[in-house]
Amino acid sequence: MAYELYYWPEIQGRGEFVRLTLEEAGEKYTDVARKPGKDGGVPAMMTLLDGTKVKHPPFAPPFLKSGKLLIGQTANILLYLGERHGLAPATEAGRLWTHQLQLTIADLVVEVHDTHHPIASSLYYDDQRPEAKRRAADFVISRMPKYLNYFEGVLERSGGKYLLGRRLTYADLSLFQIVEGLRYAFPKATARLEKKTPRLVDLHGAVAGRPRLKAYLASERRIPFNEMGIFRHYPELEK
Amino acid sequence: MAYELYYWPEIQGRGEFVRLTLEEAGEKYTDVARKPGKDGGVPAMMTLLDGTKVKHPPFAPPFLKSGKLLIGQTANILLYLGERHGLAPATEAGRLWTHQLQLTIADLVVEVHDTHHPIASSLYYDDQRPEAKRRAADFVISRMPKYLNYFEGVLERSGGKYLLGRRLTYADLSLFQIVEGLRYAFPKATARLEKKTPRLVDLHGAVAGRPRLKAYLASERRIPFNEMGIFRHYPELEK
Repeated sequence: MAYELYYWPEIQGRGEFVRLTLEEAGEKYTDVARKPGKDGGVPAMMTLLDGTKVKHPPFAPPFLKSGKLLIGQTANILLYLGERHGLAPATEAGRLWTHQLQLTIADLVVEVHDTHHPIASSLYYDDQRPEAKRRAADFVISRMPKYLNYFEGVLERSGGKYLLGRRLTYADLSLFQIVEGLRYAFPKATARLEKKTPRLVDLHGAVAGRPRLKAYLASERRIPFNEMGIFRHYPELEK
Repeated sequence: MAYELYYWPEIQGRGEFVRLTLEEAGEKYTDVARKPGKDGGVPAMMTLLDGTKVKHPPFAPPFLKSGKLLIGQTANILLYLGERHGLAPATEAGRLWTHQLQLTIADLVVEVHDTHHPIASSLYYDDQRPEAKRRAADFVISRMPKYLNYFEGVLERSGGKYLLGRRLTYADLSLFQIVEGLRYAFPKATARLEKKTPRLVDLHGAVAGRPRLKAYLASERRIPFNEMGIFRHYPELEK
């Protein structure tokens, strides 16, 4: 049975980490909120999100329907998919390490989001622009190098081109997306940092070149970056 | 073999979620950075955090040593401990749901932290006080009710006093800590909200009354709340 992915239809956002894993796994899925018609669109998503009849209600998108299971939280969805589709190691130690890396990526994603929304998600960017400038400055100078150097160090120790060595995991797909997103949002800072993180650049290239991913990235299923998502390009935030 | 927990010695912080689970499980553990002597203290923690010889380096505390395993990321540590010590269901669906709830709690913890540090963790609170006031106002008015009402709704559906029903999981211990922390940080707003979330109040009481937890909370192992941790009481942030 095909998976059903529920996420906001106009952005990559956190849903993209799930999409990349489903695409690399070669699994069929319906991107429900992007589907036209009566059983698609945002209303179809809200039914499950707000639905008092749902046994295990998710707090927020993305969430994934797999048979009777309704799974929320990006890293949790990937934990599930990774084991099912060979995108995580079989050993307990390997599974925990992969998930640990994914949760560290999730922390980074929050920090990226908060560069443009440091005060409240419910407010517009324009209503928190001075604060965003301060937060983004710290992100670019301090946090972004800390994270990227950390992942470079993990790659250095892995003994292969991927985070766990020679075998691809869902965490690699997510790290690819981080590089993509940072290049879009903070092109100058990312270019500077990439000179010191060659393994991260290689990982990005290796993932982008995988046949299924390559086809996906060139397709209409891949939503372009924009200023509604997590990774936004506001030139004034990168000075 | 006893566990070794690595976390900052002077705060509850994220380490507390791990401590609560170890205490409820009745497991022996060394709180390494709080241990005096040559093999204790913060230096013993930093050795593993920065250590280039560590195979799976954590990005940040807390992390847990269990035999040869070194496990980072709070929710990941709890995933591991929950399965080992009967604090998570045996079924895949149950394990995923418990972890999903824990990750939602983790999101809330980030938002609590950012009420006093909306610009940069590296800056003092006093250097981001105006921004903290704005962010905390949104948190108290909008985010905190959203999260607490969500968990109340989960409890309503669970068929028992705990999140998954009649059986305690590590997510309940974490949710207990959320209530404790919010009562300390935002006493007025929490008191108001608790009138509408009776099940959450009951869960807090049920956890606090468990014999092992009760003994722990009365012991010196429980660090008091203070203005260095995640939950801080700054009266000006709760108007």
